[in-house]
Amino acid sequence: MKFVKNDQTAVFALGGLGEIGKNTYAVQFQDEIILIDAGIKFPEDELLGIDYVIPDYTYLVQNQDKIKGLFITHGHEDHIGGIPFLLREINVPIYAGKLATGLIQNKLEEHGLLRSTKMITIQEDDIIKFRKTSVSFFRTTHSIPDSFGVVVKTPPGNIVHTGDFKFDFTPVGEPANLTKMAEIGKEGVLCLLSDSTNSEVPGFTMSEKVVGATINDIFSRVEGRLIFATFASNIYRVQQVIEAAVQHGRKVAVFGRSMESAITLGQELGYIQAPKDTFIEANQINRLPANKITILCTGTQGEPMAALSRIANGTHRQIQIIPGDTVVFSSSPIPGNAISVNRTINSLYRAGAEVIHHKVSDIHTSGHGGQEEQKLMLRLIKPKFFMPIHGEFRMLKEHTKLAEACGIAPEDTFIMDNGDVLALGKDEALISGKIPSGAVYVDGKGIGDIGNIVLRDRRILSQEGLVIVVVSINMKEFKIASGPDIISRGFVYMRESEDLIKEAQKQVQMHLNKIMKKKTTQWSEIKNEITDTIAPFLYEKTKRRPMILPIIMEV
Amino acid sequence: MKFVKNDQTAVFALGGLGEIGKNTYAVQFQDEIILIDAGIKFPEDELLGIDYVIPDYTYLVQNQDKIKGLFITHGHEDHIGGIPFLLREINVPIYAGKLATGLIQNKLEEHGLLRSTKMITIQEDDIIKFRKTSVSFFRTTHSIPDSFGVVVKTPPGNIVHTGDFKFDFTPVGEPANLTKMAEIGKEGVLCLLSDSTNSEVPGFTMSEKVVGATINDIFSRVEGRLIFATFASNIYRVQQVIEAAVQHGRKVAVFGRSMESAITLGQELGYIQAPKDTFIEANQINRLPANKITILCTGTQGEPMAALSRIANGTHRQIQIIPGDTVVFSSSPIPGNAISVNRTINSLYRAGAEVIHHKVSDIHTSGHGGQEEQKLMLRLIKPKFFMPIHGEFRMLKEHTKLAEACGIAPEDTFIMDNGDVLALGKDEALISGKIPSGAVYVDGKGIGDIGNIVLRDRRILSQEGLVIVVVSINMKEFKIASGPDIISRGFVYMRESEDLIKEAQKQVQMHLNKIMKKKTTQWSEIKNEITDTIAPFLYEKTKRRPMILPIIMEV
Repeated sequence: MKFVKNDQTAVFALGGLGEIGKNTYAVQFQDEIILIDAGIKFPEDELLGIDYVIPDYTYLVQNQDKIKGLFITHGHEDHIGGIPFLLREINVPIYAGKLATGLIQNKLEEHGLLRSTKMITIQEDDIIKFRKTSVSFFRTTHSIPDSFGVVVKTPPGNIVHTGDFKFDFTPVGEPANLTKMAEIGKEGVLCLLSDSTNSEVPGFTMSEKVVGATINDIFSRVEGRLIFATFASNIYRVQQVIEAAVQHGRKVAVFGRSMESAITLGQELGYIQAPKDTFIEANQINRLPANKITILCTGTQGEPMAALSRIANGTHRQIQIIPGDTVVFSSSPIPGNAISVNRTINSLYRAGAEVIHHKVSDIHTSGHGGQEEQKLMLRLIKPKFFMPIHGEFRMLKEHTKLAEACGIAPEDTFIMDNGDVLALGKDEALISGKIPSGAVYVDGKGIGDIGNIVLRDRRILSQEGLVIVVVSINMKEFKIASGPDIISRGFVYMRESEDLIKEAQKQVQMHLNKIMKKKTTQWSEIKNEITDTIAPFLYEKTKRRPMILPIIMEV
Repeated sequence: MKFVKNDQTAVFALGGLGEIGKNTYAVQFQDEIILIDAGIKFPEDELLGIDYVIPDYTYLVQNQDKIKGLFITHGHEDHIGGIPFLLREINVPIYAGKLATGLIQNKLEEHGLLRSTKMITIQEDDIIKFRKTSVSFFRTTHSIPDSFGVVVKTPPGNIVHTGDFKFDFTPVGEPANLTKMAEIGKEGVLCLLSDSTNSEVPGFTMSEKVVGATINDIFSRVEGRLIFATFASNIYRVQQVIEAAVQHGRKVAVFGRSMESAITLGQELGYIQAPKDTFIEANQINRLPANKITILCTGTQGEPMAALSRIANGTHRQIQIIPGDTVVFSSSPIPGNAISVNRTINSLYRAGAEVIHHKVSDIHTSGHGGQEEQKLMLRLIKPKFFMPIHGEFRMLKEHTKLAEACGIAPEDTFIMDNGDVLALGKDEALISGKIPSGAVYVDGKGIGDIGNIVLRDRRILSQEGLVIVVVSINMKEFKIASGPDIISRGFVYMRESEDLIKEAQKQVQMHLNKIMKKKTTQWSEIKNEITDTIAPFLYEKTKRRPMILPIIMEV
């Protein structure tokens, strides 16, 4: 790598710095690249019509012969969602924990990539050795089982990547391996890359066991049907709900494809244990008394097509809300979804349900550690250099303050952008260059074919609509042969705006006749005249600026 | 009113029930209608391109001869923003407190309605008497000065409308008139309409004086420039910032048109007092040392055109962020704006500023009372019947639980929808009918001309774009004369998708030639064939469903 000396290790990200999502990190020593995670990002509203955002993989394609493997910290979409897109470009073996392996295999199968991809399921104590580097793991706690931090040993020193983490001392499932982290720290760490998501949140994140107690409390207290919504990938939460249902003699009906497949996978891997007759089909619900029913579903983010949203709107084929129902949102809304979640909650209340959510009950906890947990990680790993990762700039910034409080000098911390390359020697670290990086938009089958022009057009169309002016011109005689006709979409309701449209036609006609009198009029001149006539006219009449599209046919 | 007996009083809303915004309430006894507030609502994202939402005024237009006056509780947009639209339909005298009068007058001037409108500034002890009804007031506390509750005396009993309120026992400005509320309660109240905004928030809302202490603390501590952003209408907050600036020897530069006019109005009315040399112009900023500067501006909601957003993005003509700057968000983001506020904060951090916001500091407090304050109102007013107002369904519902806890039986509380009419006799209350109500969209100059079809088109255009197929057909010979040409906007970047477009053209051409062979082809058939050919073709190739617009020219 040209920005890095031969005895230095390069650390960089293609995604995940200054943003939440598309986490994709790399550690490179000479001709060996260790990739960590390959996530997608869900687009913010202004990326109209875009399905996902992935990183620019140019550097990886150009250096594919050097890539030793893709190491997955855990099975969330912002860490594994990019895999099918990456695998279209390069082939690379994937190392992942048990659950992530299952989730990735489902994904690869969907994309017809299962056969061509080498997948290795890792255990915590595995060490994957390459010629110059090696990779090992340490167990962390997060909102999905089998989450690991990654240690990359390189000649200048060890690089530690935490993945997403919190320290839950009373977790559901296995606890984080503090001992191993302490040993890694004792051995010496050149640079720590640590999760910054909750660096603005003081204290310690609430334990998953507290959520379990709340779940049990709800099951003890509620007498009607219980509709329980959570993230499918939060197997711990799903597990706790199913256990509570069994304990309180309720059956469980599962709705939502991702919830169904998570429960299947969770059972296969032994995370979810329930007597065979626990689960019932949708058509059995009405045969049981209300206090024997739990409905487990997705849709906590108000996604319009999810089971819960359809239940709330009364458009679900199998479930209607009845008075006495209690709906539990075991989740917190991500900011972009606040309004749709709110709407779902209102609809449920209107339909007669009681609603329990994280604002009124300890029914959800974050998957990420708060400030004290981030400090605990810093104190255990004791790195020489520090790079906050996973988070918006404000969170990265706040994380460096925590690092400073734990004795890491500001000059030894590096807030980086995607593409920045940190060159690390035994005793020095420096941002030394930049590789291609950026956001690639996925829309339907198209990857990277939607750029700023298309998005700008979508934005104008969405706000003001479109006016098409069609006119046939006899270019020999410089006369209008037919038209101008005006068609609009998303602008005004045409039937009620006949006068406006007629007047606009008249204006265009008048102006075109005028400029064609000179008998030398160019095609482009006609086009401009149409726009220059109709745009100010419509703005004056409506205070709107629709996109104007002149279509001129020569006859 | 047909739903109401002759000795009953009708209470209903055209806006403000089951929603936040467009508050517009009415109390009617026989031929006397007392209107309370005329607000707008800011549209949620899915109302693409819509500027405001106002209520359907049909009932008011039909009964304009009965309307005695419009009584304004306070000067926020969701209570006064609808006035210009209402005044286009009917003429009605407006009664408002001092500050609201000023704000409404500015608004009427802008719309050229100042001369034709009778405005009466009310004092707390005024009683406005009509033939059968009368209106009086009581002072409340809210995040804007001169906020009042309204009492409408009608023969069956007194109707009390709280407006927006909290009980701040140590407010900036005059305290709420508890004594008068107690007297109103003692006299007897038939029905209370009470603000439900914070009915999900336990306890008491923090005092504005606590915010004042935080402001002073920030002024004492910060050594660089202070950029202070808040809502222009929160005169108390603005007042506290200006006082702190004066006290700490800083000058104040004001940015943002609404902030400038709020300060002008605040000074005229005596709310804001500052030595003449307190305020400086933008061009004087660079002549003063950093610790002598306060910049007061709008833009706490991340509005793209507001001063603060432009400062954050580095596109402000006069202010650039310099290291050492501290930016204070004295506000909380409304849910729909969370992402843009977040983006502004990140940009400010990136530019080198420190940012103080409500999550890390007591720098903002709500204008609405929490659960204990809502109970206090219920205990003071002691109504026979209760109607929660101002809020989404979940909030109205929660408010009825508080009322029940304060001894109002569930059958005496009425959660209503806009348009529902509550008929109140001396001893009975019943939702007895419904008048026209609904949302009217304002887009540019158009009021109500954007309906569901236009919005649906905007939605499709925004997500998938548009493909236009233009073809000239010789309808005598049933032959394509020219084309098909394909034009797209917001679909794919055309230059990079030449093959796709050529293939689509070929498909359309082939299909059209085929159907025209029978020589009887109708125009509509050609149109449908184009759509039926190209839509599935494009979906298969791109997994996108753009709007298809066939344009056929006959030659």
